[in-house]
Amino acid sequence: MDKKELEEGLVFTPRFDKNDLIPCITTCNSSGDVLMFAFMNKRALEKTVQSGEAHYWSRSRQCLWHKGATSGYTQKVVEMRTDCDQDCIWLKVEVAGAAVAACHTGRKTCFYRQIEVGSKDGNDIRMRFCDDSDRLFDPDEVYKRYTQIPKYL
Amino acid sequence: MDKKELEEGLVFTPRFDKNDLIPCITTCNSSGDVLMFAFMNKRALEKTVQSGEAHYWSRSRQCLWHKGATSGYTQKVVEMRTDCDQDCIWLKVEVAGAAVAACHTGRKTCFYRQIEVGSKDGNDIRMRFCDDSDRLFDPDEVYKRYTQIPKYL
Repeated sequence: MDKKELEEGLVFTPRFDKNDLIPCITTCNSSGDVLMFAFMNKRALEKTVQSGEAHYWSRSRQCLWHKGATSGYTQKVVEMRTDCDQDCIWLKVEVAGAAVAACHTGRKTCFYRQIEVGSKDGNDIRMRFCDDSDRLFDPDEVYKRYTQIPKYL
Repeated sequence: MDKKELEEGLVFTPRFDKNDLIPCITTCNSSGDVLMFAFMNKRALEKTVQSGEAHYWSRSRQCLWHKGATSGYTQKVVEMRTDCDQDCIWLKVEVAGAAVAACHTGRKTCFYRQIEVGSKDGNDIRMRFCDDSDRLFDPDEVYKRYTQIPKYL
């Protein structure tokens, strides 16, 4: 693939890694918050483009993963971008449901803990919960209806 | 590692992949835009935590990469988060310099092209340039002083 075409061209030619996956960053369209980070395979990418709802590849369960199919919190794609060398996807989404939750722990984002920056050494780094780290649903309640409890949604 | 401790604990225990890397999403603290996606090794993570400036591992050049060391567009970390299973980093940064550019092509973000969602089939997917895709600097001008031209910064 020609570098100029890859960077400046308008034909989408996603570059999958050696596992045939491409990383995907998913942000909330209204707040701009990063909700989650996951991977797509070719099929998940196609399903996302075609349906307008986020699909990923679950590495833990080794299957196509229609986000929200279990919890009801599907993600409607508002905008989809790729980066300069087309090896990463950025989805801006709206999440269905009364409460907006993307994390399997019941929180709105998977990124609910801050890492303390400015530590003297790189070991024993502490974190704190962010202000917006409250659970919006009880994962035990939401997932208990299903025989297969997701490992890391 | 205990799952509860990993998800709810406050000791930062980053989970590196089989290449000893952890993915990092970098967003603009003021706009919320995703600026870039890169990887960190243990050293890059330590340097970021200690210095408060973003450091990555360059996979193309196989070296520690102090972002902005060449272009001058260093990234000051405003906030650093990890996700539920601690296998991804989210940095909110402020970029130094008059123009705010994170992409080696001279644009403010690496994600300057939109993918058309709702295509009938998954092949021949077209893209368009985003409204904010103008170059803020000329990469040939900025990088020409250096013998080593970065492949994918």
